Amino acid sequence: MEQALQSQPPSPRPGRLAVIGLGPGAPELMAPAVRDELDRAQDIVGYTTYVRMAGPFRPDQRTLDSDNRCEMDRARLALRLAAEGRHVVVVSSGDPGIFAMATAVMEALEQADEPAWRAVDLAILPGISAAQAAAARAGAPLGHDFCIISLSDNLKPWSQIERRLEHAALGDFVMALYNPSSKARPWQLGQALDLLRRYRAPATPVVLGRDVGRPAEQLTATTLGEVWPEQVDMRTVVIVGSSLTRQFRRDGGGAWVYTPRWYPEAEGA
Amino acid sequence: MEQALQSQPPSPRPGRLAVIGLGPGAPELMAPAVRDELDRAQDIVGYTTYVRMAGPFRPDQRTLDSDNRCEMDRARLALRLAAEGRHVVVVSSGDPGIFAMATAVMEALEQADEPAWRAVDLAILPGISAAQAAAARAGAPLGHDFCIISLSDNLKPWSQIERRLEHAALGDFVMALYNPSSKARPWQLGQALDLLRRYRAPATPVVLGRDVGRPAEQLTATTLGEVWPEQVDMRTVVIVGSSLTRQFRRDGGGAWVYTPRWYPEAEGA
Repeated sequence: MEQALQSQPPSPRPGRLAVIGLGPGAPELMAPAVRDELDRAQDIVGYTTYVRMAGPFRPDQRTLDSDNRCEMDRARLALRLAAEGRHVVVVSSGDPGIFAMATAVMEALEQADEPAWRAVDLAILPGISAAQAAAARAGAPLGHDFCIISLSDNLKPWSQIERRLEHAALGDFVMALYNPSSKARPWQLGQALDLLRRYRAPATPVVLGRDVGRPAEQLTATTLGEVWPEQVDMRTVVIVGSSLTRQFRRDGGGAWVYTPRWYPEAEGA
Repeated sequence: MEQALQSQPPSPRPGRLAVIGLGPGAPELMAPAVRDELDRAQDIVGYTTYVRMAGPFRPDQRTLDSDNRCEMDRARLALRLAAEGRHVVVVSSGDPGIFAMATAVMEALEQADEPAWRAVDLAILPGISAAQAAAARAGAPLGHDFCIISLSDNLKPWSQIERRLEHAALGDFVMALYNPSSKARPWQLGQALDLLRRYRAPATPVVLGRDVGRPAEQLTATTLGEVWPEQVDMRTVVIVGSSLTRQFRRDGGGAWVYTPRWYPEAEGA
């Protein structure tokens, strides 16, 4: 027993930490590299819903799931385990680099300034984000310059969100709005839509994509004049067209929505 | 023989058209659904480089590759073949919905207003776009609100591109610049960087991702003050940080780049 303890190296060889994106949810849209990391992982860290979505896991794999609010705690736990030599995967839905766990891991890594954490073999594996999945189902609303904006004011002031919406509107960008609404943030989306209505015509196409790529998928093509906040919850991504975004009839019902590749000269607009 | 000809229906049953995204180039980042469409396709339509990247194909599969400039011709060809009953795949790199073929197919479909084209089983399958692949290698520069802007003025006036860059800068968005430079468009990137330097500090992190996810991958973390246009060609995506984007030392050389999840209150900024 003492022998065994003595033979243990004083600081173990660092392990691997892969921050992965599951994509929209359908296994056929998840990158094979992500599937491979999940298969090789010893520890799987993430928000319960996403860990469940990434599974099932083998009995020799350990899942460390937790509430969605403690992103920094999860990031630190994952770095600590990897520094101890474990093969760790941090699970995000969509793309881990877009309003997800890659940023929290970066923040934790920089703040801790721990040599053992810095030595971890750290990889970020991208995934298809919610706006891309919804856009693909709707046609091609993101076919020209666009912004992705989170409406969550948990970590940024609402004034900054309004400033971004205003400049996105003035620049005539298509916008994909993430985290549009939740029980704790009931008024933000209505205020954002009111702001956008000052710059864009009522006929501007709007796409609502809820759980796109999952069994309960819902896709709605509507307009800025007609959309109302109660159609939207936290699992919905809202795409608001530019002044050029168009809709046309789709065989079988509904509409195709796309933003042309061209932009008229100022004189011809 | 005559029997066989007579038994052919006057208008064939419409086929399928899948507009797919190969992702950055590495097979392990391509969605299994895309691999499946490529395996099932009878006709593969696309720019030569991307068709080659999507292959190899079986002898019974037909590749119809062409020069990159005739996007609308390719879109119409694909719709016509699918309307004739073929199983057609249109190949884009990255995400077909982001400055790629999905928009051209939508434009062709709306303009032609052909009932047989409208009856085609049309699906758009998303992929991981160049900015996502470069961001994942760099850390998490797209971890907060961001824009994707094409610097190509082939189909839009340069004045509109400048307007978008200005509003993206005023809104303090991270920016990913697509099509930053080519032999036919040598001065645009320099002018864009000069414009951004009026709004952002010289220390603002800039990431250059060239051929990320392909064998010749090059990733450069630099700053707005130090980047020069000659470092960039048409196969490079340029990510310019917001006022909050940070870099820190990476073990093994280079830097990690990320944009924090939070934004300071106006008073504390």
